[in-house]
Amino acid sequence: MTRQNDFDSDIRRVAHLMADAARLVILPYFRNAALTADNKLDGGYDPVTEADRAAERAMRDILARERPADGILGEEYGASDGTSGLTWVLDPIDGTRGFVSGTPTWGVLIAVSDGQGPFYGIIDQPYIGERYEGAPDGAAFKGPHSAGAMQTLAPKPLSDAVVFTTFPEVGTAADQAGFHAVATQARLTRYGMDCYAYALLAAGQVDLVIEAGLNPYDIQAPIAVVQAAGGIVTDWQGGPAHDGGRAIAAANADIHAAALAILKDY
Amino acid sequence: MTRQNDFDSDIRRVAHLMADAARLVILPYFRNAALTADNKLDGGYDPVTEADRAAERAMRDILARERPADGILGEEYGASDGTSGLTWVLDPIDGTRGFVSGTPTWGVLIAVSDGQGPFYGIIDQPYIGERYEGAPDGAAFKGPHSAGAMQTLAPKPLSDAVVFTTFPEVGTAADQAGFHAVATQARLTRYGMDCYAYALLAAGQVDLVIEAGLNPYDIQAPIAVVQAAGGIVTDWQGGPAHDGGRAIAAANADIHAAALAILKDY
Repeated sequence: MTRQNDFDSDIRRVAHLMADAARLVILPYFRNAALTADNKLDGGYDPVTEADRAAERAMRDILARERPADGILGEEYGASDGTSGLTWVLDPIDGTRGFVSGTPTWGVLIAVSDGQGPFYGIIDQPYIGERYEGAPDGAAFKGPHSAGAMQTLAPKPLSDAVVFTTFPEVGTAADQAGFHAVATQARLTRYGMDCYAYALLAAGQVDLVIEAGLNPYDIQAPIAVVQAAGGIVTDWQGGPAHDGGRAIAAANADIHAAALAILKDY
Repeated sequence: MTRQNDFDSDIRRVAHLMADAARLVILPYFRNAALTADNKLDGGYDPVTEADRAAERAMRDILARERPADGILGEEYGASDGTSGLTWVLDPIDGTRGFVSGTPTWGVLIAVSDGQGPFYGIIDQPYIGERYEGAPDGAAFKGPHSAGAMQTLAPKPLSDAVVFTTFPEVGTAADQAGFHAVATQARLTRYGMDCYAYALLAAGQVDLVIEAGLNPYDIQAPIAVVQAAGGIVTDWQGGPAHDGGRAIAAANADIHAAALAILKDY
């Protein structure tokens, strides 16, 4: 694959700088009772939005300095064009519901995309201190107790599979019906993990993640991380998922096919 | 309260020894691909059960040495009588579904109970490195970024509340109907957190936890931790919850009353 041979390791360097910066900016806002109290008093102040914006600014500052020719698409500050053909796709806090309730399964999402879609990505969990990276030269994990390469799970029957989703919190009735048609055939379903579900899929812990109602910045880093670890991410018809909407991430081609055979009718 | 004045700090010392020992025993089993592969090959071997048993043995060994007069009720090895009037109630891995899917929201539960119910408890999350403690002299947290006292949230309308539950994975149809009657009135519902939900309630992150189908060892440590932080835990009729079954944990008396007014009809 050309991308693999051509992979510019400067992308990795800058992406880790950005993830490090986002950690420092966001952590003071997480589980901060004083900020929550301010929120009540002032009415308009929202600590999550404030953390989101501050982290995206910190990441954009690094890109302005280190890679000024690249474009940016961010959740909070929108799109800015570049001249390099590369776009950094940023979601400073994916999993806002987890964040506001203290659950450490939200993440900082950083992806780099060319005309074909994302080919580099980071899912970072600042509170636990975990970083899941996918690149053309492989997938890597660094956490509080270990570090190393990541590999998705081998094929197994759908009836033995573990499925993660953000349902029932998102999606239309039709979306949910499609998800349930798969989930009822699986061994175990877990809910509400947002980007952390894709991280666990890349790390070889779960077999499937099924979602809907996604934005491009929700899914591009997960695509890069999961694919680098050997998995597959598509929409529910088997096409590209990087524009958002419905997505299925699978540990391998077999379980992807088994789930897609059900989802494509919804 | 007599318990507060009489609190035997040796209980705290031994409980932390036990939690430390359980961490060391369990962590090698968590996200261990080699063990999972063994599991497939051998058929009968279950890494979670193995970790559960090894951790309970490690905790029982400490009790045999340090507090031989106390009784024990453990998930894996059942009940053993003591002569002191105190019983240690142990669940080495609460949240098995989270454990097997790599999600760090399972916990080690340690409670000490007298004839009136649990008055000391620890919820420990070994992977993140978090410990939530409730004692007659207060509630304390120690985590990767901070440590200090814990206090549950102040009253707010149910319509602003955050509710956690292990539904839809547990409970009868009637249980689920009761839960949904409350959840549909709340601002935000999060799923599948097991004991970690009670830890977050004690830490002032969420307002309500509603569950059913519990065993005594699932709920006794959460009761002690939540109550020490200022919260209330009862069954769905407002009675004691330490024997298991249905439980509601609330950050304060007001929101407890609001939720109980709905749940008591189910």
